[in-house]
Amino acid sequence: MTLDPVVLAERLIDCESVTPATGEVFACLEAMLVPLGFAVHRFVAGEPPEGPVENLFAVRKGPAGSRHFAFAGHLDVVPPGEGWSSGPFKAERRGELLYGRGAVDMKGSIASFVAAVADIPAVAGTLSLIITGDEEGPAKYGTVPLIAHMREVGELPDLCLVGEPTSVHRLGDMAKIGRRGSVNIWLSVKGSQGHVAYPHLADNPIPRLIAMLAELDALVLDEGSDWFQASNLEITDLEVGNRATNVIPAEAKARLSIRFNDLHTGQGLVERVTEIAERHGGTAQAVISGESFVTLPGAFSDLVSAAVEAETGLKPELSTTGGTSDARFLRAVCPVIEFGLCNATMHKTDEAVAMDDLVVLARIYRRIARAALAVSAS
Amino acid sequence: MTLDPVVLAERLIDCESVTPATGEVFACLEAMLVPLGFAVHRFVAGEPPEGPVENLFAVRKGPAGSRHFAFAGHLDVVPPGEGWSSGPFKAERRGELLYGRGAVDMKGSIASFVAAVADIPAVAGTLSLIITGDEEGPAKYGTVPLIAHMREVGELPDLCLVGEPTSVHRLGDMAKIGRRGSVNIWLSVKGSQGHVAYPHLADNPIPRLIAMLAELDALVLDEGSDWFQASNLEITDLEVGNRATNVIPAEAKARLSIRFNDLHTGQGLVERVTEIAERHGGTAQAVISGESFVTLPGAFSDLVSAAVEAETGLKPELSTTGGTSDARFLRAVCPVIEFGLCNATMHKTDEAVAMDDLVVLARIYRRIARAALAVSAS
Ligand SMILES: [Zn+2]
Ligand SMILES: [Zn+2]
Repeated sequence: MTLDPVVLAERLIDCESVTPATGEVFACLEAMLVPLGFAVHRFVAGEPPEGPVENLFAVRKGPAGSRHFAFAGHLDVVPPGEGWSSGPFKAERRGELLYGRGAVDMKGSIASFVAAVADIPAVAGTLSLIITGDEEGPAKYGTVPLIAHMREVGELPDLCLVGEPTSVHRLGDMAKIGRRGSVNIWLSVKGSQGHVAYPHLADNPIPRLIAMLAELDALVLDEGSDWFQASNLEITDLEVGNRATNVIPAEAKARLSIRFNDLHTGQGLVERVTEIAERHGGTAQAVISGESFVTLPGAFSDLVSAAVEAETGLKPELSTTGGTSDARFLRAVCPVIEFGLCNATMHKTDEAVAMDDLVVLARIYRRIARAALAVSAS
Repeated sequence: MTLDPVVLAERLIDCESVTPATGEVFACLEAMLVPLGFAVHRFVAGEPPEGPVENLFAVRKGPAGSRHFAFAGHLDVVPPGEGWSSGPFKAERRGELLYGRGAVDMKGSIASFVAAVADIPAVAGTLSLIITGDEEGPAKYGTVPLIAHMREVGELPDLCLVGEPTSVHRLGDMAKIGRRGSVNIWLSVKGSQGHVAYPHLADNPIPRLIAMLAELDALVLDEGSDWFQASNLEITDLEVGNRATNVIPAEAKARLSIRFNDLHTGQGLVERVTEIAERHGGTAQAVISGESFVTLPGAFSDLVSAAVEAETGLKPELSTTGGTSDARFLRAVCPVIEFGLCNATMHKTDEAVAMDDLVVLARIYRRIARAALAVSAS
């Protein structure tokens, strides 16, 4: 069966689904998949404040012993913001572009997933779609319980492609084979309050924080690794909150964010920062958002590159740059590569996708799925 | 005429006069001074937001060619705050203490001024009281227009004693012959905002601010001078205000406060800090609250010390420590020394003065005034 991914994308965009996505947009996707022979399992996970979250797992089994290839993505979108030329939740074709929130991130990709699988016979192998309603939000009750569900029903994929918009200038110029890890650390130094005219009766925490931050800012974590750029530490906030010009404050705080490569673990970095913080009389509180991960170049990246090149003439750069994505959860299950539309308008006003790109992307996804079902995993 | 300074202090405390003081408390003081032969000039100066402010200048002229000695002080008080054992604006004697807001800072002193001048014959010389209703507030329309008025009417004093509470442990243990200068400086470094995952597309201002502050914190301004302790720089605030953990902020700010001795001028320090700020890519905005000043030890301090010693047995330490006071304005007119009650309870709940101290202070002030009218200025 041949489906037009542009029409599918329009239908999905027309269902408002600011994160967390619920109800209608999932029903819309379910209605596309059921006629294609997919068994669709929809469920809600989690409690406030990070939940509840709606998720969808759709699977179409191949013959006994088939390989299992999965597409993964999200139906939630970031809030539209102000200043759109047309309604963000009413898909509109203007010229060669299709406008609407989620056009590239990533209802357009999901439409191309559907058009791709519609064009693959069931005999080729097991295909699934792993779709969450919360990737743009806390992402606590999205892909994680989806994986738990797949584990429970014994349907873990052999390979997975995440449809995030990885292309930069032209569709096909970049795929992501990994992502850096991310950790945020809150630093605090306590002193004792007093009057600036009597500094010997007070204990100003700011100089200790300054010395601590100077040492942290001077750290060279590494020079990069085979597949990653150098790890990077950014100081992102300073806070004292002292409005009185003649008062020495009692506490000084800062926050930093580290994006790190496969030469580090989040825990190792937290320990290193904590040692420096404590040596300067402070404390450190960390939240590790994700560890770094990589799907080393091999059979899987080769088939992705070949599919992209066959449809676009471009050999995608295999990158590990950028922020985090749900690929970090899926990588624990099987090799994962991310490939999707051009990301120039993602999260912006007048988000739009070239309609031709949707058609080409569906063809690329079809090639990837067919090849993945035919070869051994890397 | 002999007046009881305790009774006078009670009357002044009973007139509520949270800064800026107005009306009743000035009428109360005027009613004390007129019977003693003082010509009282009351006037209001300034506009919102720092005004209007009520002030009082009282003068009793001595014979032609007399020397002129002035007492200076303020009738406004800081807000009482919570938790008083008795009403802050209802003077109450309990044991040996008199309780009430302003008991030591400085209605008690002003009561002792009045008791002192009541006991000095007019023939001894010209005496005046320079009394503002705004010393605890912005102090923009208090002592400054009082000096302008005195200049206008040709009644500038030869010597002046400010009655701020300078004693520490016992009445008489400390007098102030000067004060350090004070300047507050606001620092800012601008960068450009971006995502922590793409630091090359942003310009984080925080590392430049950190380096700037580290250099400023390491400055040794001086080792102290003959009559002053070392100048001191305190970083009093840091501010970025970035709540998003994945965002590199566009601006980072800090504030510092310098208390400086007679080896510096406010302007010189501002230039020095500005040079450092600009070298690190930032800017500096300064407000000089006051320059340092000193009345070098000599005839005036000798007669103050002798008066204190005669009544208390203590030789007061001649200090230049502490915050600013209106003495900084009066020092431009004539030599100024500050001497007054014990400051342990100033600005605190249950502010109180030993009633004996008020009586002894009135005697000390009388000795100082008589001696000052008799000798040459230092
Ligand atoms: Zn996305
Ligand atoms: Zn005072």
